[in-house]
Amino acid sequence: MRDFVFHTPTEVVFGKEAEEKIAARITKYGGSRVLLHYGGQSAERSGLLPKIRQQLTEAGIPFTELGGVVPNPRLSLVREGIARCREEGIDFILAVGGGSVIDSSKAIAFGTPYEHDVWELFEGKGKVSACLPIGCVLTIPAAGSEMSDGCVITNEQGWLKRGYSTQLSRCRFAIMNPERTYTLPPYQTACGITDIMMHTMERYFSHEDDMNVTDAIAEAILRTVIDAAPVVMHDPTNYRYRAQIMWAGSLAHNDLTGCGTVGDWATHHLEHELSALFDVAHGAGLAAMWGSWARYVLPENPSRFARFAVNVLGVENDFTDPVATALKGIERMEAFYRSIGMPTSIPELIGRPATEEEILLLADKCCRQDTHTEGHFKVLYRKEMEDVYRLANR
Amino acid sequence: MRDFVFHTPTEVVFGKEAEEKIAARITKYGGSRVLLHYGGQSAERSGLLPKIRQQLTEAGIPFTELGGVVPNPRLSLVREGIARCREEGIDFILAVGGGSVIDSSKAIAFGTPYEHDVWELFEGKGKVSACLPIGCVLTIPAAGSEMSDGCVITNEQGWLKRGYSTQLSRCRFAIMNPERTYTLPPYQTACGITDIMMHTMERYFSHEDDMNVTDAIAEAILRTVIDAAPVVMHDPTNYRYRAQIMWAGSLAHNDLTGCGTVGDWATHHLEHELSALFDVAHGAGLAAMWGSWARYVLPENPSRFARFAVNVLGVENDFTDPVATALKGIERMEAFYRSIGMPTSIPELIGRPATEEEILLLADKCCRQDTHTEGHFKVLYRKEMEDVYRLANR
Repeated sequence: MRDFVFHTPTEVVFGKEAEEKIAARITKYGGSRVLLHYGGQSAERSGLLPKIRQQLTEAGIPFTELGGVVPNPRLSLVREGIARCREEGIDFILAVGGGSVIDSSKAIAFGTPYEHDVWELFEGKGKVSACLPIGCVLTIPAAGSEMSDGCVITNEQGWLKRGYSTQLSRCRFAIMNPERTYTLPPYQTACGITDIMMHTMERYFSHEDDMNVTDAIAEAILRTVIDAAPVVMHDPTNYRYRAQIMWAGSLAHNDLTGCGTVGDWATHHLEHELSALFDVAHGAGLAAMWGSWARYVLPENPSRFARFAVNVLGVENDFTDPVATALKGIERMEAFYRSIGMPTSIPELIGRPATEEEILLLADKCCRQDTHTEGHFKVLYRKEMEDVYRLANR
Repeated sequence: MRDFVFHTPTEVVFGKEAEEKIAARITKYGGSRVLLHYGGQSAERSGLLPKIRQQLTEAGIPFTELGGVVPNPRLSLVREGIARCREEGIDFILAVGGGSVIDSSKAIAFGTPYEHDVWELFEGKGKVSACLPIGCVLTIPAAGSEMSDGCVITNEQGWLKRGYSTQLSRCRFAIMNPERTYTLPPYQTACGITDIMMHTMERYFSHEDDMNVTDAIAEAILRTVIDAAPVVMHDPTNYRYRAQIMWAGSLAHNDLTGCGTVGDWATHHLEHELSALFDVAHGAGLAAMWGSWARYVLPENPSRFARFAVNVLGVENDFTDPVATALKGIERMEAFYRSIGMPTSIPELIGRPATEEEILLLADKCCRQDTHTEGHFKVLYRKEMEDVYRLANR
């Protein structure tokens, strides 16, 4: 078991009435001049943005708007946001949307006081010491960014997708109304479900398997999401099950499921290169990669995968053969992904097999430099990354 | 499902190295003149207090000490602490101990800036608007006060035990080293386990049973504690299982297990009068009351108790008879309490049956006034409180 620090100061305001006090929360956390940051037109059409504008206006809080965040949020917009915040003396960022908007907001928030170019941070060449406060109104449960300390930004020059984490960037508050997720299309709902599960599983597959309470909570979250998924796929306005998924999404990535363990994160990083290269949805990319990763690393610790199979997916335990039990679990997980319309291979993800050049490019980009590795459950070097991409390409 | 706010800003520093940076944490959270508050001699003998004194001295942080906190912490000592803090310009309280010390620290922390007598707050006659910051070094996992917003103080005049909650009083940091719990005697260990489980169960027994993720997490925490309990009773220096209990104790009471539900808390309030009148350990009092409360309220919602029996205690579900399943769960829970040396009735708790006068006095004190009720799962008026005390007295 590892020593750990658990610190999730974000004030979560959850439920049907959660949106009523957005302006009051901004004031509580010291915001007096706000950047309202969002994506496309959905928050406009749903009436959420008009409602927020009205609240801010009534509360006398000046604000400026920056829309246009896209999935795999772009560095160029982050730089534009930073310039706007500096010019206009912004002291608070309100993110309205999903993980892309919140991640973009985080990068703007710590990029604004940072004296060099913000991309340096994502390249590991700098460290922030200040960050504008952020609040969010979550509309897509998936990334868990509303309670996490991290963000992932895509640099269009070279389509590099990189993350940066700092405790300073955790949202001061997160407004979560499950009703706002009713209009998510099934594909996006399924991508979110996959991302939520993967945030839990990246931490779960660890050789530090002596933190029972963390494991038990992780399994509880996974079972709940698996139970809720088919309901919301067919009954998108089911409050009860939309709520399970929304709250599970935050708990999956606020570090609760990693207390005392060490995360793997190879699937995430292998996927980041997929979604950067093919501009596919992150959740779909994770589903496409996970089974191949799982089979590749299974020999490192079959009993861990057997536990996952039994406790999460309800596989009957073959006490004499943990590998067989484990493999059934991987198969059942892939069957679950297919049941919600997710791909379980690269060809299913992008509509064709990746070319030989693309496989090599993916491995090169994921590896970055010869000494770079990914994963903890099994450490992946350049060759192993290529192996997993090839497995997923069949 | 209820709307909820979840806000646990406490920075948890957990593990074997956690104590190394207590002084640094105090500085981080703005402490410059500290009240070091603790109980008896155990923290002295264990070397923890000398270690802390040395850290504070080396860091140049002036401090003053106030020991002597007892279980069911006393109002008189809280008042003494408030006077000391005012006289000496204290701006940070460091609690070293368990829930009693942390609760006493909280009362001192919000009592110091409060302009009237602090007991007013516990009588519901006032509201705080300021609170000194608090950090804690936890040595007894039980009360969950290290991450909670509440505290319970006993007024020696009339032996009234009352609680007060404010978000302002949440600890800024909580240092948790499971090794510090190795020396807890078996009885105190068992009392802590009972308290941890009851914090979860008070929230679990709710008619708001549509927040599946909360229920699943609650069940996961309960199963982990039940699994860990016999290990630490017989192997007190088992780090792995001491750690499960310590972390479960915080999660059980930081509101995670109550998100979207409404707590019952009748067992806690019935118990508060027991421990105030007989000066018994809170955990033991809870074990003595719970089974009687459970049988009394079971008809309100047998399926909830059946779920508890199956999912927490591993009772085989009798799908045709939820009441039978539920009763088996209550019996198994009581058997668990007995297995760790806890009482399951008032006579077992105090060594004799309570007298008729004592039963009436307990009900009177718990009821406070004619219109006062306890509980949500079943609302208890004065008569029902008396009924439950009588059931527990057999």
